Amino acid sequence: MSFSSRITPIARRVRLSQCSSKGISIRPMTQIRWAGNTSATTEPHTAKAKTSGPKEIKFTSESYPEIKRDPKFSEITPEHVKSFKDLLGSESAVIDGVSQDATEDIEPFNADWMRKYRGHTKLVVKPGSTEQVSKIMKYCNDNMLAVVPQGGNTGLVGGSVPVFDEIVLNLSRMNKIRSFDEVSGIFVADAGVILEVADNFLAEKKHIFPLDLGAKGSCHIGGNVATNAGGLRLLRYGSLHGNVLGIEAVLPDGTIVDDLSKLRKNNTGYDLKQLFIGGEGTIGVITAISILCPQRSPAVNVAYFGLESFEKVQMAFREAKNQLSEILSAFELMDGRSQKLLKIAKERKLPLEGEYPFYCLIETSGSNSDHDSEKLNTFLEHVMGEEIVKDGVVGQDQTQNLDLWACREGVPETLGHWGGVYKYDLSVPIEELYQLVDETREKLTAEGLVGDDDSYPVVDVVGYGHMGDANLHLNVPTRRFDKAVEKALEPFVYEWVQKRNGSISAEHGLGIAKKAFIGYSRSETMIRLMKQIKDLYDPNGIMNPYKYI
Amino acid sequence: MSFSSRITPIARRVRLSQCSSKGISIRPMTQIRWAGNTSATTEPHTAKAKTSGPKEIKFTSESYPEIKRDPKFSEITPEHVKSFKDLLGSESAVIDGVSQDATEDIEPFNADWMRKYRGHTKLVVKPGSTEQVSKIMKYCNDNMLAVVPQGGNTGLVGGSVPVFDEIVLNLSRMNKIRSFDEVSGIFVADAGVILEVADNFLAEKKHIFPLDLGAKGSCHIGGNVATNAGGLRLLRYGSLHGNVLGIEAVLPDGTIVDDLSKLRKNNTGYDLKQLFIGGEGTIGVITAISILCPQRSPAVNVAYFGLESFEKVQMAFREAKNQLSEILSAFELMDGRSQKLLKIAKERKLPLEGEYPFYCLIETSGSNSDHDSEKLNTFLEHVMGEEIVKDGVVGQDQTQNLDLWACREGVPETLGHWGGVYKYDLSVPIEELYQLVDETREKLTAEGLVGDDDSYPVVDVVGYGHMGDANLHLNVPTRRFDKAVEKALEPFVYEWVQKRNGSISAEHGLGIAKKAFIGYSRSETMIRLMKQIKDLYDPNGIMNPYKYI
Repeated sequence: MSFSSRITPIARRVRLSQCSSKGISIRPMTQIRWAGNTSATTEPHTAKAKTSGPKEIKFTSESYPEIKRDPKFSEITPEHVKSFKDLLGSESAVIDGVSQDATEDIEPFNADWMRKYRGHTKLVVKPGSTEQVSKIMKYCNDNMLAVVPQGGNTGLVGGSVPVFDEIVLNLSRMNKIRSFDEVSGIFVADAGVILEVADNFLAEKKHIFPLDLGAKGSCHIGGNVATNAGGLRLLRYGSLHGNVLGIEAVLPDGTIVDDLSKLRKNNTGYDLKQLFIGGEGTIGVITAISILCPQRSPAVNVAYFGLESFEKVQMAFREAKNQLSEILSAFELMDGRSQKLLKIAKERKLPLEGEYPFYCLIETSGSNSDHDSEKLNTFLEHVMGEEIVKDGVVGQDQTQNLDLWACREGVPETLGHWGGVYKYDLSVPIEELYQLVDETREKLTAEGLVGDDDSYPVVDVVGYGHMGDANLHLNVPTRRFDKAVEKALEPFVYEWVQKRNGSISAEHGLGIAKKAFIGYSRSETMIRLMKQIKDLYDPNGIMNPYKYI
Repeated sequence: MSFSSRITPIARRVRLSQCSSKGISIRPMTQIRWAGNTSATTEPHTAKAKTSGPKEIKFTSESYPEIKRDPKFSEITPEHVKSFKDLLGSESAVIDGVSQDATEDIEPFNADWMRKYRGHTKLVVKPGSTEQVSKIMKYCNDNMLAVVPQGGNTGLVGGSVPVFDEIVLNLSRMNKIRSFDEVSGIFVADAGVILEVADNFLAEKKHIFPLDLGAKGSCHIGGNVATNAGGLRLLRYGSLHGNVLGIEAVLPDGTIVDDLSKLRKNNTGYDLKQLFIGGEGTIGVITAISILCPQRSPAVNVAYFGLESFEKVQMAFREAKNQLSEILSAFELMDGRSQKLLKIAKERKLPLEGEYPFYCLIETSGSNSDHDSEKLNTFLEHVMGEEIVKDGVVGQDQTQNLDLWACREGVPETLGHWGGVYKYDLSVPIEELYQLVDETREKLTAEGLVGDDDSYPVVDVVGYGHMGDANLHLNVPTRRFDKAVEKALEPFVYEWVQKRNGSISAEHGLGIAKKAFIGYSRSETMIRLMKQIKDLYDPNGIMNPYKYI
């Protein structure tokens, strides 16, 4: 069948009932989930606000009764607080719950945005300079006070809030853009600069921050680097390990690591900054970063396809890489079930009329819209002509592009519609990527846990994610908490991933949520070597304790 | 002036007399240089064969009399040799200069290709597997035998040959491609695979190795990663820190670090592999790598310009990034003097008739040649119309493209025409990149060292390099060795770079050549932290001693 008869502009096919939040700054908020589900996470870039009323958040120390406060850490005294106030030279830079009642003020720093993790801190310090961070760390190290570095507090694994009474070192006051070189595209800024502020600044200079995610309105670039955030632009611009050129950080003993290079190349010794990228604040506090920012692409196209099998999805991905090549900026996967649930939960039409077992979303970004459209059309003719893709639509303007993105970005929120969701952020080699969803569904079905009516705890087993990065989000939406579901899922999912040398946390990090499961993705040798690094940089273990490895 | 009257196809303007070696596999060989010049290096991708007769190579121990053999290392005995033969299970995997005379066979492993560094090793071992590397390292560590890991031995700073009697651990027998995934583009291979072999293999699969350099016919991919090689594709594909997904390495104590991930994303702990990228074999031996390979671009264009100032060069670079954007694959700088010397030494015409203080070479690589040509033409019209560029030519076919590349790649060899060359591989922020060349020339001129006739030691001071990466090659071609030149250059050049927080080794690494100068690019704190890492992984110091930091 010919291309022209199948691919019609989205406007003539269907109007989506809802606009996505892509590109709009929102503070991610509550999602419904089982409080006891230690593996539940969501995606940073798909976090949607759900304005449920305030609900008491369970303390992490209660959810994880096996974790005990380490008695080696000192308890904070009014004398400590006074020292911090003197050190920071400002009363307002300290939220003091020790010598006065600051419960109201301090709670936002104790709990994460998912309302899933909650600590008992009585002290928040907000340094205004790298030198102040250095003094704070040295004081804490000398006095055996545990510390949690905190950026925008938008993480998904409980890494940025205390477990017990660790001091919160919040970077929000360190929010200055230090420099931008329009010739090289090198941007240098404090760790506490909000991602969206950085990206808006760069947009004015026709550049782009090489990272994008849903929490951009709140998250800090320092936190992004500390957690090695993945997000939407990784397929095109690569990971932070390649883009971050320099880091300024403070070690537990107060040493300032001045590796804030503004050079693209510098082969003079071990690239130590890499240890802080994805180090989740366990060996030091990142206070500033230097990052290479590419040119911003003026032309953006979005297409949405229905496909008949995962083999066809792989073929489409290969063709997209081949034909769209340098302009391909996203290749996202949604299975049929995820789209069906989206349709039911949102009471909306989908862009395509037929039903397909798989859907993909493709985005192109380039410097010339005519060229990009031509490349995209040629690609579409090919994949339609070869029957790799069965049907598809292309957005005709920014609104339609956002509508198509909503079919991908609306999935995580949708899945919470029935109650709670078991969520896994995984990576396995691409050819086996979807097999896990099928096998998990088969297993839960065989155990009589999945069904259409309320007698079954599980609504369905769905898969979606960043196909281009081989990053699958396996999600199990449920109607109610049922211990049998958890038992059927774990360790089954982790063992499945382990057998394929996959990752049990592709982009979300370890924090407290995945700490216990690292053994599924890393050998004993690797874990031993990692512990060596932790001990080297933080011999007292004061940095973000009870988490990571 | 209009575009069409200025930019004419190169075929109608001039035929270059000589073809470059770009894309052709050559083993880089001798270049003339002052034996005593510790800072002299050249660029890996511009190395040309110069078939001078064999010349005695000075021992490194004589060139650097201040370096003494560390008595803590054992001297190799026939018993050691026997153990290695037993361990490797093969006589041929060991070149034994201890229990028998193997001078002839062993010399190529003792000396570097520049004939500048030469060690005294009496033993070369060639393991065939990671397990054998592990056994060798454990044996050496237990017996305090120093080791130099050696790949293709094409390095530029003496890092891959022994200084004294260190054992050479040569990876050439570990040369298997392990896997390639056409969907994800992830390539896994032994460290000893030759770069060109890897790239040819990938070319058949329509992919490209994200690194290219002149020594590709000899260098090993393991060595490329160990030295964090830069080369020609960095502007487009980024550094190895972003592209290398996994590493298998052996630590000095024999531990196999199995971090050979085939995943693009894996946020489970510290990214330890990064320490081996650019670690120059000082903390372990890389035995295999996993790397993300992009699609190969079928369309390639090359243009060559004359410009009137370095400000115009910067403007042209900014416009190229802006307008050529996703298809820009190289932006190389050559100053007028470098092109003039090329003309004189090679007795050839240059592509442009006029003389300009600056020249640039631009390459585009994309998936659609019509689109790329249109983008390039629009760019050319703009930069000509705005008088950013004064004149230029565009290659019309592969041969002409290579001819244009020869004007850039021919420079390093050309500069040796008069005798020796002082060479510096530097990076400073782009706006100041060329200023160093002017100031160095002024200084040498003021000291009466530069002139056109034979009474002056210095022929000229020239600059060229990877403009897109802010990587300058400052070169001082000389007629004869003169202590006054060396005194005028150093520490002047290093101090100039240090003042601008630049790098004294942008892409060549430290090895033995730059070891003494790291303090100009790294703070005492950074050096201390690097030494900590070295001591952690190699407490006996047996790995590649006397070099790096």
